[in-house]
Amino acid sequence: MKSILEYETVALLDEEDAVQIIDQTKLPGRTELIKLKTAQQIWDAIYLLQVRGAPAIGVCAAMGIYILTKKVKIENDTPENHDVNFAVLEQEFEKQKVYLDSSRPTAVNLSWALKRMEKVFFDCKGQKEMTMAQVKERLRGEAEEIRREDIDVCRRIGEYGLALVKPGDGILTHCNAGKLAAIRYGTATAPVYLGAERGYDFHVYADETRPLLQGARLTAYELQAAGIDVTLQCDNMSASLMREGRIQAVFVGCDRVAANGDTANKIGTSMVAIAAKRYSVPFYVCAPTATIDMSIPGGDQIVIEQRKPEEVTGMWYAQRMASEGVKVYNPAFDVTDNDLIAGIVTEFGVARAPYTESLREIFRKKEERSGERAYNL
Amino acid sequence: MKSILEYETVALLDEEDAVQIIDQTKLPGRTELIKLKTAQQIWDAIYLLQVRGAPAIGVCAAMGIYILTKKVKIENDTPENHDVNFAVLEQEFEKQKVYLDSSRPTAVNLSWALKRMEKVFFDCKGQKEMTMAQVKERLRGEAEEIRREDIDVCRRIGEYGLALVKPGDGILTHCNAGKLAAIRYGTATAPVYLGAERGYDFHVYADETRPLLQGARLTAYELQAAGIDVTLQCDNMSASLMREGRIQAVFVGCDRVAANGDTANKIGTSMVAIAAKRYSVPFYVCAPTATIDMSIPGGDQIVIEQRKPEEVTGMWYAQRMASEGVKVYNPAFDVTDNDLIAGIVTEFGVARAPYTESLREIFRKKEERSGERAYNL
Repeated sequence: MKSILEYETVALLDEEDAVQIIDQTKLPGRTELIKLKTAQQIWDAIYLLQVRGAPAIGVCAAMGIYILTKKVKIENDTPENHDVNFAVLEQEFEKQKVYLDSSRPTAVNLSWALKRMEKVFFDCKGQKEMTMAQVKERLRGEAEEIRREDIDVCRRIGEYGLALVKPGDGILTHCNAGKLAAIRYGTATAPVYLGAERGYDFHVYADETRPLLQGARLTAYELQAAGIDVTLQCDNMSASLMREGRIQAVFVGCDRVAANGDTANKIGTSMVAIAAKRYSVPFYVCAPTATIDMSIPGGDQIVIEQRKPEEVTGMWYAQRMASEGVKVYNPAFDVTDNDLIAGIVTEFGVARAPYTESLREIFRKKEERSGERAYNL
Repeated sequence: MKSILEYETVALLDEEDAVQIIDQTKLPGRTELIKLKTAQQIWDAIYLLQVRGAPAIGVCAAMGIYILTKKVKIENDTPENHDVNFAVLEQEFEKQKVYLDSSRPTAVNLSWALKRMEKVFFDCKGQKEMTMAQVKERLRGEAEEIRREDIDVCRRIGEYGLALVKPGDGILTHCNAGKLAAIRYGTATAPVYLGAERGYDFHVYADETRPLLQGARLTAYELQAAGIDVTLQCDNMSASLMREGRIQAVFVGCDRVAANGDTANKIGTSMVAIAAKRYSVPFYVCAPTATIDMSIPGGDQIVIEQRKPEEVTGMWYAQRMASEGVKVYNPAFDVTDNDLIAGIVTEFGVARAPYTESLREIFRKKEERSGERAYNL
């Protein structure tokens, strides 16, 4: 059995007409690769959380829609037949796009990636010099570009984050915003991976992250597999670690950042931030600009998903952990108020309070780099 | 199957020469009573956490040593044979006391209760008018007194605590300092039970309390069984509840309170206190004076027990939750700094900051009540 280190979370196997993923539902017990070839297989993989993490889902969907379009057989693929052939491709593309988009309706990156693919696809429409082979090649290129951008964005976040800590630091993280949530590096773990390459010798502390234990099952596992010093603790233990002086910085990912810096992320994130403030430990949010939503003024506008009680009372367990019928509070996310955040680390630098100004500045920088492809919603 | 409501956590069945307990390892799935009749059975029950919670263990040990001494057959139980008969009893008493005391060496109440029983026992030695039946009766009386005092102390803590909240309040608690940790009422739950009797209509929120889930398995269960409105949540969700304005007070128990008010309690307690401070929710520690250790100046003098990794990585689960060999941080307790505590609720009233003075005042009150039996270590 090979380690997850040897594989990217999502990879395109073009010769095999497949998207290859690591089945995250089997981790940490087994590292199993799955080759997704049909629409149903791709949909299931996303729905069943075999692939998870906003960036990884986006890449998987982009590669998936490419593979599904590529498989459409075109009989006489000459420029003269462009219009009639494109109509055939279009029918399949639109059908599969709608289908894949339905696998996880709340995942922003999923529809974002599919829309990006759709734009490239329709840019080809009516370009009568293009064969369908060339159209498919354009889709492949865009899917690969989305993948490349994810790696680049994470690497840049890693560089900015790394400048905030020093060798030997204790770093705490919550949930999994790691390699397994993206393609390489991850967001919250990017400074850790880059630091490891440069001998920074960090001590990483991973919150187990109830109720679904992404920290225990994924973060502790992927860092351990990479040979990084990692310690697992229950979520309620992080204040103790800080009180003992073992944590010098907190890095977390995010699901959505409002224009004022308020950050929605996995439930429990805000408690870590509150404890960090108490113990004067800087708390950093690692945020690709794609997850910063400038249209939302503050965290109160972010709707928090409530999930099913069984995740708390019985899931993962051989027997129930609580009595039948007990009421359960089980939000998937919480909001960390901006005053608790020491910095928001993006691929265009670190935003500091007041965030309403600094985040605008980040987006100005992003627009200035007109030569670069915008990685945005 | 009957509900736990119908039984006390620990009860003396004198006619049957037994101590009856609710087997807490079976909760919440099954309510099973066990009758402990032999020294081995009593020792096992404490060691295996079938009975747990400092007050409950103390009462169980006191009743246990009584039952074991009572079972010693005395042939000619007349005052004339006092010395020779007492020697027979003494041999058994001492042997069983040492044995029971070894079941959980760190539980203060265990050795405290056994020492109290021993004192009463030796007070009878050489009182030549006493038969052994009378000596045994003295032991029974003391065991019953320890039980009665526990109920009384909890009830008084409940009264003082109840005065700190109002009908309809949302109350959060961590771990189990409930009826199942004592005889009746519990400590942290005492205000809740008393309030329920008086129609206070509280909404109680119970932290599940990783890693051993005492909140999910015991607190949510016992409150639900009592018909109290209780909601279960993961430990990392309590800040969200406070942010939403659902919590008006926090009540927790404690394992040891230092002279300055710093409080050691189940791991995660301090994170609740930090979040409560953030959201201006008063955080109260419910502390029988027996758990206030005036000989320790502050929390840094309290040694925190580290427990085995398997509790975090695999316990309760059908399969491992983390990879083999991952490092684990698993302290059993943490220290809540006194500035986070709004009040320490004892059976002699509520101590407020500065605690170094107010706790001394509590003990002065306690000594003044010379007519009452001192409930102390």
